[in-house]
Order: sequence, then C-alpha cells, then structure tokens
Amino acid sequence: MEKHQRIVDENLDRLKQMLVRMAGLAEDMIDSAIAELVKRDENSVAAVPGQEEQLNALQIEVDEAALTLLATQQPVANDLRFIVSATRINSELERIGDLAINITENVRTLLAEPPLKPLIDLPRMAELTRKMVRESIAAFVNSDPVLAQTVILADDQVDALKDQLFRELLTYMIADPRTIERALALILISRHLERIADHAVNIAQDAIYMVQGRDVRHPRAGLGRVPQI
Amino acid sequence: MEKHQRIVDENLDRLKQMLVRMAGLAEDMIDSAIAELVKRDENSVAAVPGQEEQLNALQIEVDEAALTLLATQQPVANDLRFIVSATRINSELERIGDLAINITENVRTLLAEPPLKPLIDLPRMAELTRKMVRESIAAFVNSDPVLAQTVILADDQVDALKDQLFRELLTYMIADPRTIERALALILISRHLERIADHAVNIAQDAIYMVQGRDVRHPRAGLGRVPQI
Repeated sequence: MEKHQRIVDENLDRLKQMLVRMAGLAEDMIDSAIAELVKRDENSVAAVPGQEEQLNALQIEVDEAALTLLATQQPVANDLRFIVSATRINSELERIGDLAINITENVRTLLAEPPLKPLIDLPRMAELTRKMVRESIAAFVNSDPVLAQTVILADDQVDALKDQLFRELLTYMIADPRTIERALALILISRHLERIADHAVNIAQDAIYMVQGRDVRHPRAGLGRVPQI
Repeated sequence: MEKHQRIVDENLDRLKQMLVRMAGLAEDMIDSAIAELVKRDENSVAAVPGQEEQLNALQIEVDEAALTLLATQQPVANDLRFIVSATRINSELERIGDLAINITENVRTLLAEPPLKPLIDLPRMAELTRKMVRESIAAFVNSDPVLAQTVILADDQVDALKDQLFRELLTYMIADPRTIERALALILISRHLERIADHAVNIAQDAIYMVQGRDVRHPRAGLGRVPQI
C-alpha cells in the first residue's frame, strides 16, 4: 500500500476509536442518569461529571485530528467525506452528553419528593435510546448502512413511548395538581431522551451518506444532486 | 492574487451567502410561528413549509459545495477551518428550521382553545432568539468575535425568560387543571426557543474559533491544545 494512504488509514482508525470511546462515555452517562432515577440513589451519577469532561476533551481532540488530517494529507473521495462527517458526529456525541447532564438535573427534582408512579416506559425509552447511540456509531465506523437503517426505524418507537408517557402524565396532573412538578420533570426527561435519539438518527444518516454517497436527511430535497468528488 | 486563492475565495463567498440565506429563512420561520400564536391567525405560517424545503435543499447544497471545495482546492489554515465550520453551522441552521416547525405544532394545540394568558415573555424570548440567530451568522461570515461574544452572553437572558415563564405557568397549572394542556404547550414552545438560542450559541462559538483558532466550547478542556495547522 502507498505510504500516504497508510498514514491516512492510520489516522482514520484513530478517529474511529475516539468516536467509539465518546459514544461509550455518552451511553454510560445516560445509563447513570436513569439508574439514579430508578434506584433513587445519587451515587449512581458520581462518575458523570468526570465523563462529561472526558467527552468534551475528546470532542476537541477529534476536531484537531480531523483538521490536521485534512490539512496535511489532503484526502479525497470517501476519506474526505468520512473526516467531515466525523467532525459533525463529534458534535452530536458531545450534545448527547449535555442532554444526559440535563436528565440528571431533572432527576434531582424528582428525588426531592416521593415517587410519582412506577417507572416502566422511561427506563425502556432510555434503553432503546442507548442502543440507538451504540448502533449509530457502530454503523458509522463499520460502514454498515443496514444497521444505520435500524437506528432510523427505532426512532419511531422512542417517539411512541414519549407520546404515551406524555398522555399518561397529563392525566396524573389533571387528576391531582400536587403531581404537576414531578410529572413535568418526567416529561422533560422523556424529551431529553427523545433528543438523544434524534442525535443518534443524525449519526445514522451520516453513516448511510458515507457508504452510499446519498443524502438521506431530506428525502425530497436535492435528489439527484449527489456530490461527485 | 494567485488564481488558486481567487477560486477558493469565490467559493468561500458563495458558502457565506448560502449560510446567510439559510439564517434568513430560519429567522422568518421563527417569526411566522410566533406571529401565528400571537395573532391567532393560521395564515401567518402559510410560507413555513416552503421555507423549510428551501432550508433543507440549501443544507445539502452547502455540504456539497464544501466537500467539492475541500477535494478540488485543498485549502489550508483559516480557509480549511472555515469550510469545516460551515458544514457544522449548516446543520445548526437546518435544526433551527426543524424547531420552528415544532413550535408551529405546539401553536396548533393552543389555537384550538381560548388564550390562557396575555403573551409577553414568549414573544420577547422569540425576538431575542431571532436576533441571536442573525448575529451569530453575521459574526461567523464577517469574522467578528466581539459580536459572537454578545450572542453567547444573550443566551443567559433567554434562559432567564424560559425559567420565569416556567414558574408562572406552573402556578397556572396548579391553580386550575383546565389550563394544564395549554400551559404545557407554552412551556414546550419556550423550550424550542431555548434550543434555537443554543444553536445560535454553537454558531457563535464556531465564529470565535474561526478567528482566534481558540476553542471556546469547553473552557476547561483542551486548553493550550489549539490546532496548529
């Protein structure tokens, strides 16, 4: 193999490893935040601030590595697309971390009062969402458009759970105003999870774009205007 | 001026114009969504679906133009950073459009019932948020870190308005359960506006990064590890 391409490939591998590490951190943060809520145990989130710092540091590292690679190796075609996508996915993962932090803030409101109801839908939503994050990154680093498609389809389940939870909590609030604050906190947590799932969908769309050179973000827009580089 | 650099500059200008146009569309969409709510007139949002399609098409165009520019002109240093930032800002603007659509959906819930309260904070929040979008893009295309900093500072005002509105609507809900659905719709609209403001902050941070080569996204992380390319 040509030496230049070998250097590019080594750097692409490093980028992939960093993205996988970021996804792992983001997943752990979601898990800890929901564990705190379910177990009502603040120790569950002890690791979260440190994980957020690592995620933030990795975000900057990925950007630096990508820019250096673009500037020094001037990659083309698939490699170029991969690197530009990596800088975008990077931001998605960092925001997933931010949303996990938002969840821990809402959990704090909930732990100050007795439980409102047994939590079933929310942990399920969190589990689905974590799986979407994990699989979207796997789809991207392994160039697996089929896996990416399953992530995109799973989003409907997350949305359905969010809507179901919303309707259920609305009935609680209407029946008893003392439940309003807790119900609102649960609604907001479900919205944060929904947004995390949306970020996973964005990553999955980039994964498909990478492999097929086809932009699936807006099926109706820009058809036939695939970048030919 | 060298011919190669002239081609790069022309293409950068084109990218800037497309981003400014995207920001204008996003701003109009926010304005229409809030106008519908304030005037209780569905005609206010007649243009929104068309604007969303334009925004989506422009997002793909910007990505294509950026990738083509990277592949064919192999820009370095500031130009390279600008192009990579443009592909990220591009996604921010498209999501602002999505959030404006979310607002129109919540507005529909509100228009089905009589007004809950006179709307003062929400239109103010929308106005502040629109200004942040406009100024963040101006800061980016004009390389104006001072303007970018004002955008970042304005975010605190948006957050304060969101918190104030939340507390006020909570008292409505607790006092009269019949207000719960409308209050929730207003809370969700304020959250969408808050997220739009967050996207403007992301754009402003990229603007500062562009000019100063300094990453302001995580002040504590990665200090002293500025990319040297």
